[in-house]
Amino acid sequence: MNHEIVWRDVERIRAEVPLVHNITNYVVMNTTANALLAIGASPVMAHAIEEVEEMAAIAGALVINIGTLSASWIEAMVKAGRTAARRAIPIVLDPVGVGATRFRTDTARRLLEEATPTIIRGNASEIRALANAGAGTKGVDSTHTSDEALDAARALSRQCGSVVVVSGATDVIVAGDGVVRIHNGHAMMPRVTGLGCTATALVGAFAAVNPSAKQAAAHAMAVMGIAGEMAAGRAAGPGSFQMHFLDALYLLQESDIERRLRADEQ
Amino acid sequence: MNHEIVWRDVERIRAEVPLVHNITNYVVMNTTANALLAIGASPVMAHAIEEVEEMAAIAGALVINIGTLSASWIEAMVKAGRTAARRAIPIVLDPVGVGATRFRTDTARRLLEEATPTIIRGNASEIRALANAGAGTKGVDSTHTSDEALDAARALSRQCGSVVVVSGATDVIVAGDGVVRIHNGHAMMPRVTGLGCTATALVGAFAAVNPSAKQAAAHAMAVMGIAGEMAAGRAAGPGSFQMHFLDALYLLQESDIERRLRADEQ
Amino acid sequence: MNHEIVWRDVERIRAEVPLVHNITNYVVMNTTANALLAIGASPVMAHAIEEVEEMAAIAGALVINIGTLSASWIEAMVKAGRTAARRAIPIVLDPVGVGATRFRTDTARRLLEEATPTIIRGNASEIRALANAGAGTKGVDSTHTSDEALDAARALSRQCGSVVVVSGATDVIVAGDGVVRIHNGHAMMPRVTGLGCTATALVGAFAAVNPSAKQAAAHAMAVMGIAGEMAAGRAAGPGSFQMHFLDALYLLQESDIERRLRADEQ
Repeated sequence: MNHEIVWRDVERIRAEVPLVHNITNYVVMNTTANALLAIGASPVMAHAIEEVEEMAAIAGALVINIGTLSASWIEAMVKAGRTAARRAIPIVLDPVGVGATRFRTDTARRLLEEATPTIIRGNASEIRALANAGAGTKGVDSTHTSDEALDAARALSRQCGSVVVVSGATDVIVAGDGVVRIHNGHAMMPRVTGLGCTATALVGAFAAVNPSAKQAAAHAMAVMGIAGEMAAGRAAGPGSFQMHFLDALYLLQESDIERRLRADEQ
Repeated sequence: MNHEIVWRDVERIRAEVPLVHNITNYVVMNTTANALLAIGASPVMAHAIEEVEEMAAIAGALVINIGTLSASWIEAMVKAGRTAARRAIPIVLDPVGVGATRFRTDTARRLLEEATPTIIRGNASEIRALANAGAGTKGVDSTHTSDEALDAARALSRQCGSVVVVSGATDVIVAGDGVVRIHNGHAMMPRVTGLGCTATALVGAFAAVNPSAKQAAAHAMAVMGIAGEMAAGRAAGPGSFQMHFLDALYLLQESDIERRLRADEQ
Repeated sequence: MNHEIVWRDVERIRAEVPLVHNITNYVVMNTTANALLAIGASPVMAHAIEEVEEMAAIAGALVINIGTLSASWIEAMVKAGRTAARRAIPIVLDPVGVGATRFRTDTARRLLEEATPTIIRGNASEIRALANAGAGTKGVDSTHTSDEALDAARALSRQCGSVVVVSGATDVIVAGDGVVRIHNGHAMMPRVTGLGCTATALVGAFAAVNPSAKQAAAHAMAVMGIAGEMAAGRAAGPGSFQMHFLDALYLLQESDIERRLRADEQ
């Protein structure tokens, strides 16, 4: 993984302006839409059962996020997932808080089967809970390191045929037997709400332009981490971090990736 | 249209602090509330069928925005619209993403009839779709220039008796045969989510203090564009733009309008 | 009330990272989550009837906010409140806009009985309306000073056994016969949407670490006001205020509280 192929995806997003259909949580709708616009994609948020099939059908990627679930939204997630799967549109699942309640765990597991995600992104606690390897999560914040979820991610990847992203201080991307690690990012990122959800949304944008799910996931996480480092250099705290982070996605150049990218692959 | 009458409306908003009742989408609730507060209005968001009539009845304007629709919200929009219409409270409709799905198109058309908007604001693709002149929209972002929607806006204005605003690089305000064009604004504005929705909300605030729907719409769009220019002068990217935009609405003075306003009328 | 005991609570929040379960309104979900993260707590937003009991049961505090009500959310609020009460988890109620519509008033009164709040925080108009002393509110913004709601707050506190916070230019905290007044804060705060809701969320974080509801409420309001002053020193308008406010919560040190705290107690 070198900086040129990461940059090529950014250029494609900016040139093609892929529509990313999000069925996501209330907390992050604004910030993930802004992140998608800042990187160059075109976000749409739509959750009504009456329209999700049509919306997913015209999208370049579908992002499903269970952060603030309701029963009626789950049906829409399944419907949208089926449509996307039929049309070979990549599907990205963010199982926010899976393990914290049975409702979230049941829903996330159901979505694994019925919405057939191409890529799953969660923190270490969530990936462990989703793979049935964890003893529950505490709310939506992780209590494990990414590598503590490596076995869970591998099991999940094999079981679902999905690329699995465990985000954290190091991001671990698992595709079957292959593992990519991204060492970019900044300690302030968990202090801004929804940056995990933003990562998921960006994975959607990259998946819309790169047919390799593994590359799309890795490149998106690299861009997240690099933009995070750029933002941290200017931020006094998490409020200014969020602002500079969006600016960094917008201002991102090839030289930023070249200079900062720290990734390795097994 | 000169700067004094635009400024007079801003002064009225700051003096009267009109209550603007929004039934709007999840993505922009925070940013449109902040924009309304920044210009001097008092926003309230309320969508429950049980309370929309009472809330609309005490408001200075009603703003209806279909950005993240659900079936139950549509009934509330209709109910609120009827209440506002009965009491001659101005109604502003933002048909976000109309044309992208049948559900949005059907809903927007129903709201034209049953919520009887005083003013309609959309981007060029949306106004074309709403007037049945377009071949569908791509998500929520426009693929046409404002003047490509001029005929559609005229047809819509005649058909509904509404003032129609087509926002874009140039904002076109159509009221029957009259056309106002506002040339303010900045290219970064479409890279911030929901600034179109913010424009709609501001149109609501202006309509609450100015009985001429055409003037209210034109003055609000001028203030949007001018605040956008002020923000762009300080912003590094869309993250900082959003922040400076709110500050600009708050700091706006008559001299800013005098110096920057670029409008013409036919 | 001195700065050391306020600071001790901040240190506890940062050390214990209490989970704060919010059933709150769409407008503020992002900003209150960010405020909770910035001060050091761990926010979770969850409203589904299927999961609120489990979520409340693992939380350090439950925050209920009626800003954008729907019928189904009310049942979830009641259920979560009962669970929290059974487990002696503190419950904070924000009766946003009570008095503006019957639906809000009925719901807020029902929540007083069935969700049994430990602490209630509202602006003066809301507290008056909730105590049946006001003639209705105008939307969600107050038209009274905090001391004009003192009798109402006292009646409400006696009636419900709750600590009552009336926020405003001076914050008044009423616990039975005792009254604490906090004179911190800044005039720009009402121009940022949802800072009242943010205060409520912070009260939840403080209640999660301090078993005295009165102290928790007073300390949270002091930190709100002090962070507001710190933000105002750097902000040009409400847009930059919101950003600097989050940074201030994150950067807050004991010396800031020592230098700025202005409180008195009767």
